[in-house]
Amino acid sequence: MSYPVTGEQFLGTARVPGTGPARTAVDPSTGETFGPEYRDAASEHIERACAAAELAFDAYRAVPDEQRARFLRAIADELTNRTDALVERAGRESGLPAARLTGEVARTAGQLRLFAETVEEGSWHGARIDPAIPDRQPLPRADIRQRQVPLGPVAVFGASNFPLAFSVAGGDTASALAAGCPVVVKAHEAHPGTSELAAGAIAAAAEATGMPDGVFSLLYGDGPTVGGALAADPRIQAIGFTGSRGAGLALTRAAAARPVPIPVYAEMSSTNPVLLLPSALASRGADLGTAFVGSLTLGAGQFCTNPGMVFAVEGDGLDAFETSARKAVEASTGATMLTANIARAYASGVEKLSGHADVQVLATGAQPTTASGGCATLVATDAASLMADAALRDEVFGATSVLVRCRDEAELIALLRVLEGQLTVTLHADEADHELAGRLLPVLERLAGRIVFNGWPTGVEVGHAMVHGGPYPATSNSRTTSVGSLAIERFLRPVAYQDAPAGILPTELRDDNPTGTWRRINGVLGNH
Amino acid sequence: MSYPVTGEQFLGTARVPGTGPARTAVDPSTGETFGPEYRDAASEHIERACAAAELAFDAYRAVPDEQRARFLRAIADELTNRTDALVERAGRESGLPAARLTGEVARTAGQLRLFAETVEEGSWHGARIDPAIPDRQPLPRADIRQRQVPLGPVAVFGASNFPLAFSVAGGDTASALAAGCPVVVKAHEAHPGTSELAAGAIAAAAEATGMPDGVFSLLYGDGPTVGGALAADPRIQAIGFTGSRGAGLALTRAAAARPVPIPVYAEMSSTNPVLLLPSALASRGADLGTAFVGSLTLGAGQFCTNPGMVFAVEGDGLDAFETSARKAVEASTGATMLTANIARAYASGVEKLSGHADVQVLATGAQPTTASGGCATLVATDAASLMADAALRDEVFGATSVLVRCRDEAELIALLRVLEGQLTVTLHADEADHELAGRLLPVLERLAGRIVFNGWPTGVEVGHAMVHGGPYPATSNSRTTSVGSLAIERFLRPVAYQDAPAGILPTELRDDNPTGTWRRINGVLGNH
Repeated sequence: MSYPVTGEQFLGTARVPGTGPARTAVDPSTGETFGPEYRDAASEHIERACAAAELAFDAYRAVPDEQRARFLRAIADELTNRTDALVERAGRESGLPAARLTGEVARTAGQLRLFAETVEEGSWHGARIDPAIPDRQPLPRADIRQRQVPLGPVAVFGASNFPLAFSVAGGDTASALAAGCPVVVKAHEAHPGTSELAAGAIAAAAEATGMPDGVFSLLYGDGPTVGGALAADPRIQAIGFTGSRGAGLALTRAAAARPVPIPVYAEMSSTNPVLLLPSALASRGADLGTAFVGSLTLGAGQFCTNPGMVFAVEGDGLDAFETSARKAVEASTGATMLTANIARAYASGVEKLSGHADVQVLATGAQPTTASGGCATLVATDAASLMADAALRDEVFGATSVLVRCRDEAELIALLRVLEGQLTVTLHADEADHELAGRLLPVLERLAGRIVFNGWPTGVEVGHAMVHGGPYPATSNSRTTSVGSLAIERFLRPVAYQDAPAGILPTELRDDNPTGTWRRINGVLGNH
Repeated sequence: MSYPVTGEQFLGTARVPGTGPARTAVDPSTGETFGPEYRDAASEHIERACAAAELAFDAYRAVPDEQRARFLRAIADELTNRTDALVERAGRESGLPAARLTGEVARTAGQLRLFAETVEEGSWHGARIDPAIPDRQPLPRADIRQRQVPLGPVAVFGASNFPLAFSVAGGDTASALAAGCPVVVKAHEAHPGTSELAAGAIAAAAEATGMPDGVFSLLYGDGPTVGGALAADPRIQAIGFTGSRGAGLALTRAAAARPVPIPVYAEMSSTNPVLLLPSALASRGADLGTAFVGSLTLGAGQFCTNPGMVFAVEGDGLDAFETSARKAVEASTGATMLTANIARAYASGVEKLSGHADVQVLATGAQPTTASGGCATLVATDAASLMADAALRDEVFGATSVLVRCRDEAELIALLRVLEGQLTVTLHADEADHELAGRLLPVLERLAGRIVFNGWPTGVEVGHAMVHGGPYPATSNSRTTSVGSLAIERFLRPVAYQDAPAGILPTELRDDNPTGTWRRINGVLGNH
């Protein structure tokens, strides 16, 4: 099969070109543009996509679990079928290597299959039954039953750095569709063709599995105009976003200012501190230095979980860590960054950091010769300087990290307490460090959504136990995750039914539990 | 035992009078003030309460589940011990009758016991384990484990209309303490003595069960000054509120404007529409009219779930409903309202509604002779008028309701679609109405948090399946409830632990599951 890209939007099942400003994709490694032309959505297209999503909502949420799971698996299959086309197009649009993108297609498909399983497993319904007690004194107790229902149409804003896994058919779309919410995606400007291909996979799957028209739409456009109008549409009931802090906060403000505010799940920024505890540092400082730079330079450092800060108490092994990290950075070849804008922002961030009076540049990697190349940089400072200037703690999106030398454990802990919320925090700890690690744990639990031991924060496993989230400003809502099956809950809300006649009750709340789902009866969990 | 009130605040275990403006309680039935004097918290008191809560947090959240449950049960016991004092004082401060308040003490104690059970049951930990797969290709899978951790200190703002169940030791305090969050309460100005007595029960329980100092504090003061400062304190991590829309939205805005925004769970307002479906109306119109007024006038209509609108399609039984409802309203004797302000606002709301050109006054009850009396009022209008003027759909807090006559089913459905989010919606439906009820259900699920069949919305059962919440503006967050055991989740957030050494793992995530809690292993739920 061939999968041509045409530049058209998906308004439900209709394919319609935009009529706003025209854009084309740019190859970041050469700066060259290439077709087709993508025109921004006009307000009539946003209106049509939202109207279709609203119209589809009741039909889609009534689709039985097994059929909804079939839809999610069909999307996974359709994406898999398009692997070659996606990898080729995403490679040109993002500069990311084919091996990484091949893996990302598989990850995206795997994510959809995880949500298919989650839908089938049934506990997401949150079914609860408190049966009536007619002879209770002084008043009888009514029969109360509860389940989770989907919020309504969801707007998804794709990220630049994962053109597949955090984009059109990515985690937010998968979890919203799993919850029973139609989805309207605004494609990221940097990968319109990849977006169109992924949308084609969703549309084909929706058709093949008989989903209602409007369950999915794709619009092109910028954040402020098209994104802003989409976020303001009264039919949109929640927003999923991965991207910069500025854009995420703008969306959050826009959503709060609506006549009816809606939740925004924005995953925004993180410096992902890595802590080298004394015994681990002493026993394997050199190895840690090399492995750290491997994580730092992965994907040109363009991961939300890139290790942007390393904390160590001065002592045995720190010199060895520095030496090997410096060598690894110097040996790094750099890479094309996702877009020219990102490369410019990275260069300026590195320049600002390197030029800071309290910062020493330890090592710089080779600057690649491509148009939007970024080179790895390692700088160092001390804890007191990092405490004194919040700007030193800002994320530099790319392969740059700050090594922070702490005088003692007390300074390390004081530093952890001033940090902003993070997606991850990592500890390298040997047996002899466990006592300290245990004492740090309560601080780290308040700091981040994921605590990594003796590994590196890059590489977010897709599973049931993953948390990709964390306290503000890592995300706009710490009580959820954007990766892993728990994410289905962000698009659900509870409804109680009091004394509902048997014939009206939703399937999962009927006395006979025909789907054998998990339920809490008088508070007791079981398949009853 | 006697339980004197002294006018002191609770700053952790210290009892300290405020130094701000002085207030005294007012008997709404006479307008007379009575002691002791309560002075507002100064900023140093807010500072002290928040610092104590922050200091208590790590110790409190580390308290084992069974000990935390013991604390919650001890509060229930201490409240029960104080029943006479609470009923006497709350009666004078609120004008509510002793029988109702006696029931409310029992309800408040029952709520605490429900959360004790919920804590012990353990599934609130949200334990999830995805074990490592060392030989997975192309990359090994790390061991990932997840649990829910408490957010941090919570500020609770008590409601005027439930001086016990939605106040100092009410649902928000119970669910936050259950989740492991210290609580700082701002007492409602209308019942300072009741607040002090309830705080005494919590403090005694905390001491008896060895809870850390600072797990609970009580401050006196107004919303804008003391409440605003409390909501802005950086140590406060979430807010629970029940009250007016104006105050709730002010809190929500203040929380969103903080350098680090925090969630606000505000339960604000609702008109709780009641739908009389044709067959039910035809078969028992007269009985429905009488029962409706029973719900309307309960507690002087001062319930969040008071039935403020009744919708009926013109047809058989509507005259009978009107006639019996009118008679019941005319026979009603009215009651003292909670405060002089509430009585004034009620009178002005009724006057505005009654004077509306498109509204007919059907019946007015007797005006009580007490200082802050409110009398029941029933008015009527038609669907087109209600559609045309949103002001007709505003909540009038008190025993007033609007009967809305619809021409046909289509008009009824159109009306449901323009309504704002509600706490409840009620249907009276006979067998022959079930087909219509089934068609309405998707609309009603989007409208309200609880759907009541053949009953009345007043009377919110405390249990596992209850939802006391709903779409904006009924609450600021539709994805939760303020009554029932699900409320524990609003004060929790997920944290993942990757490859954590066994000795560092939290108890509920250890391989041997020593507490036998519910866990999801590779997505499969069980006591494993």
